[in-house]
Amino acid sequence: MEKSWIEAPCRKPSPQHRASAEARQSSLTKPAGSLGIIETLAVRLAELQATETPRATRASIVLFAGDHGITAQGVSAYPSSVTGQMLHNFAAGGAAIAVLARELGAPLTVVDAGTLATEPIQGVVDDKPRRGTRDFSRQAALTGDELAFALASGRRAVERDCRDEVDVLILGEMGIGNTTSAAAVAAALLGARPADLTGAGTGLDAAGVGHKARVIDTALRLHGLDSASAPPLVALQCVGGLEIGALTGAIIAAAQAGVPILVDGFIVSVAALAAVRINAGCAPWLLFSHRSQERGHRVVLDALAAEPILDLKLRLGEGSGAALALPLLRLACALHVQMATFEEASVSGPAGAASC
Amino acid sequence: MEKSWIEAPCRKPSPQHRASAEARQSSLTKPAGSLGIIETLAVRLAELQATETPRATRASIVLFAGDHGITAQGVSAYPSSVTGQMLHNFAAGGAAIAVLARELGAPLTVVDAGTLATEPIQGVVDDKPRRGTRDFSRQAALTGDELAFALASGRRAVERDCRDEVDVLILGEMGIGNTTSAAAVAAALLGARPADLTGAGTGLDAAGVGHKARVIDTALRLHGLDSASAPPLVALQCVGGLEIGALTGAIIAAAQAGVPILVDGFIVSVAALAAVRINAGCAPWLLFSHRSQERGHRVVLDALAAEPILDLKLRLGEGSGAALALPLLRLACALHVQMATFEEASVSGPAGAASC
Repeated sequence: MEKSWIEAPCRKPSPQHRASAEARQSSLTKPAGSLGIIETLAVRLAELQATETPRATRASIVLFAGDHGITAQGVSAYPSSVTGQMLHNFAAGGAAIAVLARELGAPLTVVDAGTLATEPIQGVVDDKPRRGTRDFSRQAALTGDELAFALASGRRAVERDCRDEVDVLILGEMGIGNTTSAAAVAAALLGARPADLTGAGTGLDAAGVGHKARVIDTALRLHGLDSASAPPLVALQCVGGLEIGALTGAIIAAAQAGVPILVDGFIVSVAALAAVRINAGCAPWLLFSHRSQERGHRVVLDALAAEPILDLKLRLGEGSGAALALPLLRLACALHVQMATFEEASVSGPAGAASC
Repeated sequence: MEKSWIEAPCRKPSPQHRASAEARQSSLTKPAGSLGIIETLAVRLAELQATETPRATRASIVLFAGDHGITAQGVSAYPSSVTGQMLHNFAAGGAAIAVLARELGAPLTVVDAGTLATEPIQGVVDDKPRRGTRDFSRQAALTGDELAFALASGRRAVERDCRDEVDVLILGEMGIGNTTSAAAVAAALLGARPADLTGAGTGLDAAGVGHKARVIDTALRLHGLDSASAPPLVALQCVGGLEIGALTGAIIAAAQAGVPILVDGFIVSVAALAAVRINAGCAPWLLFSHRSQERGHRVVLDALAAEPILDLKLRLGEGSGAALALPLLRLACALHVQMATFEEASVSGPAGAASC
């Protein structure tokens, strides 16, 4: 497949603006470092946006949906029909991410990157090379061309929805069966045991999770992905999903365009891992919103050296965890920009030192 | 001292509204429990507000400030003069909590509950029985009457600032030396070792923290508070602070008035512990916003069986951690009220069951 665009360089963060933001943080009227991760977020946004006034006011949310042939192996608590039903629920405003988008004033774009839906749905962008993936326990989930289409679908979404400059991009996903695909991709990329990456998804019991891990284990052997860390494009093609491919492409395209990405839970983090393996320049652009309850998330976060902002025992997906973290980014920026310095407020520094 | 009002019954949460909120959560279009702590927050607010439409739109922030005679023992990295300087910074809008209050649209009231300030400060409510506490390494910090005044000062603030119905009350504090006083109160209430409750405060080094713990240890022996868990009013009078007393009174008064309280960090949590020891009916009204970096906070949270929402490595106080958690309460309520049910959205339940 055509590799060129996904390997093109990403924007570089600005070390000058990082240094300037750190200096400002230590001049503000609070004990040094006392705002913890909130300070870190402001500094990182200043560095990524190359500005002295970081902000997260204008956020775009893009949700990619896809269906998965692997559901034929009984790996999900819900039927595949739910993916299409949820597309309608996103468009109608009743799904969690739709409520959050409205409350946050962040436009939500839903992309059908490869669901089984046969008809276009009003309010959903149709951008798919096929309806659902193939059952990866029997054959490769995607052809090389289909994966290339999915990656480009992610890039198209970024070009479309980040055309007017946005401060931060929130990526989400929906797709019955996609924790199975994501666990398989992560296991292949990390050379890890499927059992360590396989969780309950939408609500499997322990027996269901065991079955799901065995299905992944067998499939990785079938594709020769079980021995060492696999090339990312091979993993995505053999056991990935169309929404996972689109997320991977969107992450790369956003990093190339210099847009900070607020990463959601397990699925988006696996896409982020694939993106970083394809193009290491993505890494600085990833802000990890939360640690989910899905078992494999911790392993993937560790592999990315990620320290998520929230730990709310979420396991919904849709971008909901990232959306819930957005107010913290916004408040971090407001504090960074609006707080008074020791000098401005005539407040003494430590140990009775003069204003500093 | 007069005990009557602080022991009067608190409002009771509504078990019917709790049950109804739990039923609604399991009818919404998401895997059961997949919004984790966000679901818990919505259910708790529904139970406390006795409503099917919980909300956290109208939040009031009340910050109590006080000074501490114990600073004469070199227990803080900052001089006492900073407390008064910060009162001006709160009033002028340059402090962290002032920025957060503005961004959140939550009115901020700053109460001088006992600082050393000699002149009234515009924009600060003056409600103090004395300027600063006595040095509790030598004598009781407060008389019984002074403590009673401080507790009533908290009640007056609730009556004043929760007069128009508010959905949630955020309590904060400021006072150089108040982590020393709070650690002493907590050690006395819990019969715990001061070393386990003593942290860096505004930024002591390890030697400073060791000195601070020894000062507390010696003081607890002086007051006979070192052997077992002390009566809360005795602990507050001997080693407490005026802002800690005011916070304790405010918590009791808010629980009596049926206003949910979003608890900030170490100091407010110690006041919450004292309040629960005085009047156990307070406990259901406490929502814990975050786990701070201050060493003793974990011990106090454990004693209150609290599971805070955030863990952002904060150690600022002022109510800043509670303010940062407010958007999550607001979004939890929006999700609870606005999300579609499986039936409304015609989405299938688990395992292909009919809409449920």
